[in-house]
Amino acid sequence: MTSHGHAAAAPGAYVLGVDSGGSGLRVALAGPDAAAPLGTVVCGEPVRTGAGGIEAAHLLEQALPAARELLARHGGGGRITAAAVGAAGMTTLGDRLRAELPAALEEALGVRRIALAADAVTAYAGAVGQRAGAVVAAGTGLIALGTDLTRWRRADGWGHLLGDSGGGAWIGRAGLDAAMRAHDGRRGGSAALLERLEAVFGPPPELPGLLYPRADRPAVLASFAPEVAGCAAHDPVAEGILRAAGTHIAEAAAAVCPEAAADEEGYEVALTGGLFRMGEPLLVPLREELARLLPGARAVPGSGDPLIGALRIAQGLATGGLRLPHHPTLLCLPGHRAGDLGER
Amino acid sequence: MTSHGHAAAAPGAYVLGVDSGGSGLRVALAGPDAAAPLGTVVCGEPVRTGAGGIEAAHLLEQALPAARELLARHGGGGRITAAAVGAAGMTTLGDRLRAELPAALEEALGVRRIALAADAVTAYAGAVGQRAGAVVAAGTGLIALGTDLTRWRRADGWGHLLGDSGGGAWIGRAGLDAAMRAHDGRRGGSAALLERLEAVFGPPPELPGLLYPRADRPAVLASFAPEVAGCAAHDPVAEGILRAAGTHIAEAAAAVCPEAAADEEGYEVALTGGLFRMGEPLLVPLREELARLLPGARAVPGSGDPLIGALRIAQGLATGGLRLPHHPTLLCLPGHRAGDLGER
Repeated sequence: MTSHGHAAAAPGAYVLGVDSGGSGLRVALAGPDAAAPLGTVVCGEPVRTGAGGIEAAHLLEQALPAARELLARHGGGGRITAAAVGAAGMTTLGDRLRAELPAALEEALGVRRIALAADAVTAYAGAVGQRAGAVVAAGTGLIALGTDLTRWRRADGWGHLLGDSGGGAWIGRAGLDAAMRAHDGRRGGSAALLERLEAVFGPPPELPGLLYPRADRPAVLASFAPEVAGCAAHDPVAEGILRAAGTHIAEAAAAVCPEAAADEEGYEVALTGGLFRMGEPLLVPLREELARLLPGARAVPGSGDPLIGALRIAQGLATGGLRLPHHPTLLCLPGHRAGDLGER
Repeated sequence: MTSHGHAAAAPGAYVLGVDSGGSGLRVALAGPDAAAPLGTVVCGEPVRTGAGGIEAAHLLEQALPAARELLARHGGGGRITAAAVGAAGMTTLGDRLRAELPAALEEALGVRRIALAADAVTAYAGAVGQRAGAVVAAGTGLIALGTDLTRWRRADGWGHLLGDSGGGAWIGRAGLDAAMRAHDGRRGGSAALLERLEAVFGPPPELPGLLYPRADRPAVLASFAPEVAGCAAHDPVAEGILRAAGTHIAEAAAAVCPEAAADEEGYEVALTGGLFRMGEPLLVPLREELARLLPGARAVPGSGDPLIGALRIAQGLATGGLRLPHHPTLLCLPGHRAGDLGER
């Protein structure tokens, strides 16, 4: 448990934030208007996805004990006035969550103000807050999301075979392609990346047999992305891959960044997610490509992570001050009527 | 059964060819020195691949009755003097075939001269024959293979996540990426390809949910390749994808084409497989890129398919005239000792 910050909340009134992703579930409690969480519980097990989509029961059996534990740590007499659940796969696999979670949360915790958000929306809320703007959330995959506070615009996030261009799996795959080209003697190969492939995976001809039977192929590809970054300073092929990734990321940001996000200094594009820990080898070309595609834009680190974003959404619900637009799958508020805010 | 051509063989002496691929198994009988098969049996069921690789027993339970049926059609008193089995996955998943097939074929059919070949090698033998040269075999995937008759050179064939650059899945994936870009409003999008995506798969946001749960993802991607070809005449993005595919194919060909393949007119690169049925939209840029990368090279259609290639290899074994180099996984001759013919 982490515990930091102090809520100026009415005693005993809390909001709950849940972030469900590929590496597990995190649950946090906060006061209704404090920036920092009062406490966080990390549940290691990723929520299962079955034939019907994300399994609501599996999410609840982890999140409810965590919520009760957090309440107990704060005197035990508190009540949760609003909850926001952000989950990876919410847009395509969230039907059961949307159908089952609200009643279950109300029954178990007495909470009636509930938001179900795509992980890109909690990433937005964490990184940008309740302002007009744009975020690029990138790890193994990559998605860009922007809003002028009347509707959402989304770009990419289509997975490793249809897009996620510039994300971790994309960079890793491009690096492995260049390594195999060097192995074959094809044009476009990189001896430096081939050396890294051999160091990480062993003999190149055996890599297909290692990769294709795995269920987590995108993660295996993404595991090679840091090797590409490590070669970029001295290998022009690796440098070119990160330059191309920067272009793709800038293209996604430019597609979603609303006019309303401009201030005197231009547009702010928030970057969040593990990909950007790669640092300067990616950020330098990304900033250059962003400046070319979206003049006046500057990339800034997001202020908070998706769990903070879930708390911010729950706080908006609790206080009646939620400014982010409703949407049937991106930001679903059961019991509220969504405005005419179609996703583009 | 197809039956055409007349063998000038000694009566009753035949060779057997087997071609095992993703769409099933084909078995053919020929005389020891005739170009055309005497008969062919098509078995619909693809040979199973299990934890131990391609299942030898499943191949035999289809191939042996087919061989006996073909012998029966030709009087029943004939004997098979040599057999060649070409199989997709032979290099990475062929351990059990190499361990179990020779003894089983000898016991069941009395045949002792046996070759086990990668499908790329039977493609080579079918398309080029027993000469030095190069072949590009492309359908959903893509591999290039060349030989100077002392050793094999291979390029690509690493599957849809590591290469197969310019093949059907590669072209389809690039087309779907461009369609999703148009859907998002990202740079590099194609409205024409988006229209085709919607016609074929339905609403773009639902495509990830259709594609990722499938086991045959590469085939789904490749199914969109003809749509890209169909748009190329009027859509610059689609045209650019086929141009890039042509470049990748030429790069693979250039990496394997041996000096020894040159005649007075230059190099011949044989093209074989379903991809090239796409015709001029792919072949025009491919020829141009090939001419740039490998001056003097010309792309020609392969003369025969992989089943013909398997028969040619078996005929080479039967007559002692096999000129294609042995190799532990590409062209394995159990009982023969391989020369010093390492794959590059």
